[in-house]
Amino acid sequence: MRLSELSERSGVSTATIKYYLREGLLQPGRRVSATQAEYDDTHLRRLRLVRALIQLGKVPVATAREVIAAAEDESLDHHLRLGAATWALPTGPEPDEDDPEAAAAGRTVSALLQHVGWRHDQELGELSPAYRTLVAAVAALRRLGYPCGVAHLLPYARLAGQLAVTDLDLIEEQPTKAGQIEAAVALTVLYEPVLLSLRRLAHSEESARRFTDTDEA
Amino acid sequence: MRLSELSERSGVSTATIKYYLREGLLQPGRRVSATQAEYDDTHLRRLRLVRALIQLGKVPVATAREVIAAAEDESLDHHLRLGAATWALPTGPEPDEDDPEAAAAGRTVSALLQHVGWRHDQELGELSPAYRTLVAAVAALRRLGYPCGVAHLLPYARLAGQLAVTDLDLIEEQPTKAGQIEAAVALTVLYEPVLLSLRRLAHSEESARRFTDTDEA
Repeated sequence: MRLSELSERSGVSTATIKYYLREGLLQPGRRVSATQAEYDDTHLRRLRLVRALIQLGKVPVATAREVIAAAEDESLDHHLRLGAATWALPTGPEPDEDDPEAAAAGRTVSALLQHVGWRHDQELGELSPAYRTLVAAVAALRRLGYPCGVAHLLPYARLAGQLAVTDLDLIEEQPTKAGQIEAAVALTVLYEPVLLSLRRLAHSEESARRFTDTDEA
Repeated sequence: MRLSELSERSGVSTATIKYYLREGLLQPGRRVSATQAEYDDTHLRRLRLVRALIQLGKVPVATAREVIAAAEDESLDHHLRLGAATWALPTGPEPDEDDPEAAAAGRTVSALLQHVGWRHDQELGELSPAYRTLVAAVAALRRLGYPCGVAHLLPYARLAGQLAVTDLDLIEEQPTKAGQIEAAVALTVLYEPVLLSLRRLAHSEESARRFTDTDEA
């Protein structure tokens, strides 16, 4: 297909496609004349991954380039290729190393992961962006005196484990491995507001159930 | 207690406390001399709520003033007072009314809430900020061609329902109604990064379980 059709089918403007070509995020098409190139389904798939990383995930171009290299490296297993893609996504604030609460929060998070048996996450520990964000979030709770011990966090970790099964089922609906990597990035990002807004709606429902005066119900 | 002690015990600087006093977010202390006022535990509790709204929740001052009025209005039942406080918190993007996907997303969200039986949220519907954010998030998924039908969203809604039970249990640990309102604001905000980072850690664990080559495990 020509550039115009690639743009139409991907929903990415021709100007943006040309930018991705210049930045090496999209492999060049097969040249058919001095001014025209021919693109195929591999370009369409790559564009979906690039769009998921840059437009949805807000990943910087240089990082996106590394992620694409890892995602397409067939010597890595599928888990590592998915991980390379999702690790690049921005997370929340980092823990402040000088904060004494960060050290205590780190011990809580480590005990929590041991408790739920997330062997893999424990090994990666401090290297993992999500692990570091979790430590920062628990440190903030500690600093302000809100409940955040292992016993408080455990139900959230268990529910997150169930969410991950649902999420990975959704990702595995994609028929190709490349499609799964792209879906992992897009769905990680796009389902965050779904989850947070459903949580708030559920709060309202649960609060009505517990606290509405019976004579008004 | 004097202003300096109120500052020390609340962790809010004296300059910020004076600003809250000027803006009418904190009730004046009992004047004991031309230059000094005396504060008590009601000021300490109010400061925790103001801090939760403004510093954690990023709620504008004028909105915080309205929230405090509702939170302290004893003619309202506890559910409405909690709702007034958490509805003021910022959510994600709003749906674009001109987007045809927003209308279809609205029908999906409505069918989803009917399916889980969240009667209360259905009645409030479009008025609720979380409802509107959910519609916008589903519209984005539709526009990009990712799975987001009622069948896909249902497991997330069910898990959100379980999360809400855990969250409300945590909020009810606070002994006073005023403390519960303040905790509802703070925990809604502070547990969002906890939940999102646990979800990402759980992804990594679940992906390792499904996709790591057995000879490397």
